[in-house]
Amino acid sequence: MITTDTSADAALKAFFDRTADARLESYLELLRIPSVSALSEHAPDMVRAARWIVAELDRIGLEHAEVCETAGHPVVYADWLHAPDAPTILVYCHYDVQPVDPIDLWETAPFDPFVRDGRMVGRGAADDKGQLHMHLKAAEALLATRGKLPLNLRFVFEGEEESTSANLPGWLKSNRHRLAADAVIISDTGFFEGNIPAITTSLRGMLYTQIDVVGAPVDLHSGSFGGTVQNPANALARIITELKAADGTVRVPGFYDDVVAPTAEERYEISCLPFDEAAYQEIVGVPALVAGEPGYSLLECGAIRPTLDVNGIWGGFTGEGSKTIIPAHAHAKVSCRLVPDQDGDKLYVAFRDYVRSVAPKGVTVEVQNLGTAKALRTDPANPVSKAAARALKATFGVDPVFIRSGGSIPVAPLFESMLGLPVVMLGFTNPDDNAHAPNETMVLLNYETGLRTICRLWDDLGTMSSLEARMGGTTA
Amino acid sequence: MITTDTSADAALKAFFDRTADARLESYLELLRIPSVSALSEHAPDMVRAARWIVAELDRIGLEHAEVCETAGHPVVYADWLHAPDAPTILVYCHYDVQPVDPIDLWETAPFDPFVRDGRMVGRGAADDKGQLHMHLKAAEALLATRGKLPLNLRFVFEGEEESTSANLPGWLKSNRHRLAADAVIISDTGFFEGNIPAITTSLRGMLYTQIDVVGAPVDLHSGSFGGTVQNPANALARIITELKAADGTVRVPGFYDDVVAPTAEERYEISCLPFDEAAYQEIVGVPALVAGEPGYSLLECGAIRPTLDVNGIWGGFTGEGSKTIIPAHAHAKVSCRLVPDQDGDKLYVAFRDYVRSVAPKGVTVEVQNLGTAKALRTDPANPVSKAAARALKATFGVDPVFIRSGGSIPVAPLFESMLGLPVVMLGFTNPDDNAHAPNETMVLLNYETGLRTICRLWDDLGTMSSLEARMGGTTA
Repeated sequence: MITTDTSADAALKAFFDRTADARLESYLELLRIPSVSALSEHAPDMVRAARWIVAELDRIGLEHAEVCETAGHPVVYADWLHAPDAPTILVYCHYDVQPVDPIDLWETAPFDPFVRDGRMVGRGAADDKGQLHMHLKAAEALLATRGKLPLNLRFVFEGEEESTSANLPGWLKSNRHRLAADAVIISDTGFFEGNIPAITTSLRGMLYTQIDVVGAPVDLHSGSFGGTVQNPANALARIITELKAADGTVRVPGFYDDVVAPTAEERYEISCLPFDEAAYQEIVGVPALVAGEPGYSLLECGAIRPTLDVNGIWGGFTGEGSKTIIPAHAHAKVSCRLVPDQDGDKLYVAFRDYVRSVAPKGVTVEVQNLGTAKALRTDPANPVSKAAARALKATFGVDPVFIRSGGSIPVAPLFESMLGLPVVMLGFTNPDDNAHAPNETMVLLNYETGLRTICRLWDDLGTMSSLEARMGGTTA
Repeated sequence: MITTDTSADAALKAFFDRTADARLESYLELLRIPSVSALSEHAPDMVRAARWIVAELDRIGLEHAEVCETAGHPVVYADWLHAPDAPTILVYCHYDVQPVDPIDLWETAPFDPFVRDGRMVGRGAADDKGQLHMHLKAAEALLATRGKLPLNLRFVFEGEEESTSANLPGWLKSNRHRLAADAVIISDTGFFEGNIPAITTSLRGMLYTQIDVVGAPVDLHSGSFGGTVQNPANALARIITELKAADGTVRVPGFYDDVVAPTAEERYEISCLPFDEAAYQEIVGVPALVAGEPGYSLLECGAIRPTLDVNGIWGGFTGEGSKTIIPAHAHAKVSCRLVPDQDGDKLYVAFRDYVRSVAPKGVTVEVQNLGTAKALRTDPANPVSKAAARALKATFGVDPVFIRSGGSIPVAPLFESMLGLPVVMLGFTNPDDNAHAPNETMVLLNYETGLRTICRLWDDLGTMSSLEARMGGTTA
């Protein structure tokens, strides 16, 4: 599959060959910093990771490399703006990683990365330090071999993507003056099943809630009180069950009102994806796959239709053996993945009111809004997307597929809505990367070929002097 | 209310008056031993408590006092058998207590008992060390003032009542030869709402299960997989919801088949109990009371009808904030209180099969049987029960009510089935005793008057030389 077209630049090829060992060592070094944004004990590691990246950016030859303080973890910024006739691309990645729990399911220490069977293994190998590192190494190679880049670059590397991006919107707003660009490349997605090169053209949005059901002030003896009071855990189960029909349809009134129906073309494109359901089921390891809604295929339900899932549930006695109580309270985290044009905040109100309306008598029910994010749909026909497809074909040797992701990147829609920039999601991770799970991996061929893809894309875009006009972006 | 009829025995009255302080100090001393049977770290405390009781029994003048080893915590046995013409009563109490969790809801240290507002406060004050202590002090008073007891007594004090009585059935079986008696008095129940003296005439049985729902081997990213797999927590909620109709009726096939319908007389008796629903609701602290089934009153649902309750539920992410996963697995503890003639083991099979039949596609569901206990119904017309009612009337000044308890004492039916002995449940705790909950209390007037009740009852029974024949008990 890998053709690594570097015919146009033998020096670049030679540089990549010559520096392979150092590149791997640098990748390992970055992964060894436990930059877990969600846990306050790792705050010093977040600063360490940000400084490590800034030092690399300085060494490579990027300019204005800076650890930008925020109310949370820092944003790393750098730019190179010496290609006056070429377009400007803003590259977004994140250097924070997911927590490592459940730690006992890791085969090795999460922050002691190593290479096995052609894969880098360790937390952040794929999501998203590996992809951030590819951008560093692509820029290094171009600057080292030519002394310049073919286009203007701005790097924005976030430290809070895995914990709701609380401070990035504010940082984007107040740094708007130095973020002028023609387009944004987000490298935080991956390839399609079977490790087929892909460009992601949509993300789902999010509504994340918590349902709190309260009965008595303390746990009650289930013998003395069983039959005379409502049980908060039973009540919670009923509420959750009422949220969806048996066929999976979400029953919250108005839930589908703003959903933009997929076009026949979209559905056809999805149906053409080379998807092996049996292989997918085996990888996921479930007894059966279950499409979320009637009338839609599995791939449609997983990407372009909204969902509703319990993320966690708890209440009462959860130890070994038996304890005969009626729990004082029971709770659930329930989140919805949203699609255009669903509005999380509007749906929260409908969700809360519906939950209250189906709550059984005898308990008090509260619903918290723990966060919302908008869905994003990008245009696969825009020139940057087309150039990315050409670069993937040139380096991986096959035409990429255009895929819809079921996931969410909270900040992605903000580049459009806040900075007015079109977004292209070009990511390189293998689908079985175990992102967010134990034993995260990145296939090193994806990494190595991917950084050549990036160089190829920069060269391609560098020839488009009129990109700004063609993209409809702003350089305010 | 308290008349403390001791006219028949001025010496007894004087003894009780003279030893009041020492009695309280001894009660405090017993409560200070943290005899939590469920937690293995307290195993040495269990032995300490058993030895403390045996030392007291020796000092008081009981005979054959023994810490009897079992595979679990010891049973304490003692007897006094020198009233050849009088009946023999076996007294059952337990010296183990419930765990103290949730510890943060206790106002004071659970094992640092003290007196406040006329109540003893501390773990075990009511359930069941306080009642065990009353029997010790009743025997002490009679032996101290008369040198003998008016009847034959056997004490069996268990150390595992709060953790399924795993070893008592075996101990009863192998000690059958020294347990010959005419009747059993169990002191592990309490008074009716409003602190009205009561004799408990039925206990519910139990079926305790755990439902385990498993999807993928690890938590899945809810964006990548939401809409393509069954969510184990949603599936568990649906299973739990399917267990009961919206009106509370249990939907497990055959669940009610063996239920003995309450007689019109029973229902009339229950309807005559002086029950203040508003006061009860305020004590329990729930927004509304909810009768378990249509067609039955609250008191009926709480005592003579079977129930189904979730005792605990857990799965997925339960920390602060949000984590977007589909849980790999979800679990619930679900127990049923049973009534005559429901059979827990038979119902377990029906329960398990029903759970499997309603389990949604795409998950694996297992159901564990964590224990069963039979319901018990006693005869309020038997002579010991009538004598207990007379003793309560004579000491507390009011006729006791006959009540059905919603709770279970796993071992209680075994005295009937294994030893062939009729059971009378005579307990003295106030209904707001917070048994199993934080801030457990015993009203000291119940304690003090209750031990006079016990003396009165022994005197009364001591006059019944033909009790054995009248009770239909065995003295094999």
